[in-house]
Amino acid sequence: MALKRSKINITIPKDRLETLVDGIFAIAMTLLVLSIEIPSAEFHSTADFQIYIISLLPKILIYFISFILLAIFWMNHHVFFVIKRVNSAILWINIIWLMFIALVPFSTSLVSSFGQYEFSQIFFDLNIFTIGLLFYINWNYAVKRGYIAEKAIPYDKPIKKSNLFTPLIALAAIALSFINPYLSSTVFLFIPIIYIFYLKII
Amino acid sequence: MALKRSKINITIPKDRLETLVDGIFAIAMTLLVLSIEIPSAEFHSTADFQIYIISLLPKILIYFISFILLAIFWMNHHVFFVIKRVNSAILWINIIWLMFIALVPFSTSLVSSFGQYEFSQIFFDLNIFTIGLLFYINWNYAVKRGYIAEKAIPYDKPIKKSNLFTPLIALAAIALSFINPYLSSTVFLFIPIIYIFYLKII
Amino acid sequence: MALKRSKINITIPKDRLETLVDGIFAIAMTLLVLSIEIPSAEFHSTADFQIYIISLLPKILIYFISFILLAIFWMNHHVFFVIKRVNSAILWINIIWLMFIALVPFSTSLVSSFGQYEFSQIFFDLNIFTIGLLFYINWNYAVKRGYIAEKAIPYDKPIKKSNLFTPLIALAAIALSFINPYLSSTVFLFIPIIYIFYLKII
Amino acid sequence: MALKRSKINITIPKDRLETLVDGIFAIAMTLLVLSIEIPSAEFHSTADFQIYIISLLPKILIYFISFILLAIFWMNHHVFFVIKRVNSAILWINIIWLMFIALVPFSTSLVSSFGQYEFSQIFFDLNIFTIGLLFYINWNYAVKRGYIAEKAIPYDKPIKKSNLFTPLIALAAIALSFINPYLSSTVFLFIPIIYIFYLKII
Repeated sequence: MALKRSKINITIPKDRLETLVDGIFAIAMTLLVLSIEIPSAEFHSTADFQIYIISLLPKILIYFISFILLAIFWMNHHVFFVIKRVNSAILWINIIWLMFIALVPFSTSLVSSFGQYEFSQIFFDLNIFTIGLLFYINWNYAVKRGYIAEKAIPYDKPIKKSNLFTPLIALAAIALSFINPYLSSTVFLFIPIIYIFYLKII
Repeated sequence: MALKRSKINITIPKDRLETLVDGIFAIAMTLLVLSIEIPSAEFHSTADFQIYIISLLPKILIYFISFILLAIFWMNHHVFFVIKRVNSAILWINIIWLMFIALVPFSTSLVSSFGQYEFSQIFFDLNIFTIGLLFYINWNYAVKRGYIAEKAIPYDKPIKKSNLFTPLIALAAIALSFINPYLSSTVFLFIPIIYIFYLKII
Repeated sequence: MALKRSKINITIPKDRLETLVDGIFAIAMTLLVLSIEIPSAEFHSTADFQIYIISLLPKILIYFISFILLAIFWMNHHVFFVIKRVNSAILWINIIWLMFIALVPFSTSLVSSFGQYEFSQIFFDLNIFTIGLLFYINWNYAVKRGYIAEKAIPYDKPIKKSNLFTPLIALAAIALSFINPYLSSTVFLFIPIIYIFYLKII
Repeated sequence: MALKRSKINITIPKDRLETLVDGIFAIAMTLLVLSIEIPSAEFHSTADFQIYIISLLPKILIYFISFILLAIFWMNHHVFFVIKRVNSAILWINIIWLMFIALVPFSTSLVSSFGQYEFSQIFFDLNIFTIGLLFYINWNYAVKRGYIAEKAIPYDKPIKKSNLFTPLIALAAIALSFINPYLSSTVFLFIPIIYIFYLKII
């Protein structure tokens, strides 16, 4: 005999799921900064310190890329909220999706510290790929079940297509990482460019 | 002469307790990622780096387990909010419960870094056990005092039973840690399985 | 010519100040866990690891004390919100107060790592003292200006008295730290005891 | 064919943008405390520990300055919300602005650990300069597009002028860093002074 808690109406209110989502995004976006390390040792000269400051530039670039990607995923999540109902499957897809969102500060640190190895890049790329894929699955599942708001139905197709951008760009980044690890993550700069000039989101 | 502040209606509004709870969960869930360490030293070769990347897999598994557990505890807490009143005892049970929630990133790091020692596993298992036990006490106390919403009363018994799952599985994990420390925390994977297939929560 | 922005009604809404306050408390409470360190070195034997686990106990006690103190300060802050108006002075008192709240994870780490030195204890004690003092000033200033809600006026005197507890206990802790540094922070355990048994808050 | 998501009204609700902004500020303000380091090594004597405690004072001063600056930027952001509409350009200006807000804990750590080098100071100063500049651009763009609330229009000029304070003081700090790195960041203390005595904000 399964306990059907839903019968006593103990569903998770949409606004508290949003609070958790917004909270995890705000924290993940702010923790990204920990990928830019403060050296624990002292420097021998001002020249040494200048070299360190210059070495920060690629780390700041990857911080920049990750921050923009998380901002875009956060914005995308609002699209998800034209979904009018949430069932157990959708909730779990979202939790696993959040798990990969919260992993981004680690992936970013990996690329930031060990960008010369293609495995760092592939780790980062797979992280972004999974985020994009889960979001794609989420939307398609919701459409199939008839859970999206009526006004969003005519836009189903272009949304489905646009949800493919992130996983596809991540696959391109993986391919590129074998050629040049340093270039791999810069491919993701295409995502904000697509969002700004093609999708004209919000 | 005791100061009865409640008389002047300075009780903590339920929505702000929820904000604190959601905040602590969002942060604890995101801090889990710090259990996956970035080495500070350089690697001698690409092969060395590959070994490091492979060594991340069990750390990611324990990150996965802890994230899912915290997500389930967060969902459970919504069940708690069919409780219609909060008194001083319930508030303090909740604060101590939150203290053990906020301890999970440390326990996770301990298992992640020193999983070969059964004491790490027992520490983690006891942390989860205490969280489950406090939640069990919380519900039973609220029922005894007549603080739960009327519509939830017929579901009291199955909820009580389901609240025993977490502490019991934690005890099983402690027992298992003496046989094989590495297997201990994987026992917790039963919790999401139970929630998804048996309890059909939300 | 001073720019009176208040004329165009760009005051900070009370609910967003609450969001910031709740956010900083949730984060500070969760960051406390970083005071319990994960050693970076490997252990030579299981016995060594057991010694480490036992050495965690005082660190967990100070984590416990700080968590409870922050929880009490957070609850106290709700009392503040019977204040019906916020002016520039009150806002700045609150921001400086939050600055000392956000400092608690550092003070806690200091006592956790270097509890044998009385200067660690005094640093921690002064941190708590300042938090208590600013809260005391905040309330007295609001009363003088007539900013508190009418229903709270008959309770002004007992609230004023209760606001003295934290700074006075902090002073006692400073005195004690010269006799025995280890005992100093345990004095703060009186604060939850007073709140639970004497003040019967909430 | 561009997908006009705005047509299906999937714009980001103002209250969720506020949640993200408040979240990032609360976290960045609390992470500042990580700039005050706990040494990992043991001390040889009580005298050594006292020297360490005294060496914390400039680190606490820079923590203080950064906390106050972030608090002021957070308050300023409320001014922004007399803007009645948000378009894609404003959203992206805000996201890049948040990226530099989230960078402040790093810049603060840099000055805290390596304040003797002018490059640390310049890094910090440029961070604050960019935050101020983006805020200035944000307001001017919103005014030009007619997006600000009517009641705010007569205050456009003094707000524009006051938005110049932060970038100008940051430029002064850069100039000063070449003369004396240690004095550079203290220049920012003028910002709270201006806000309290001249702008009389809120």
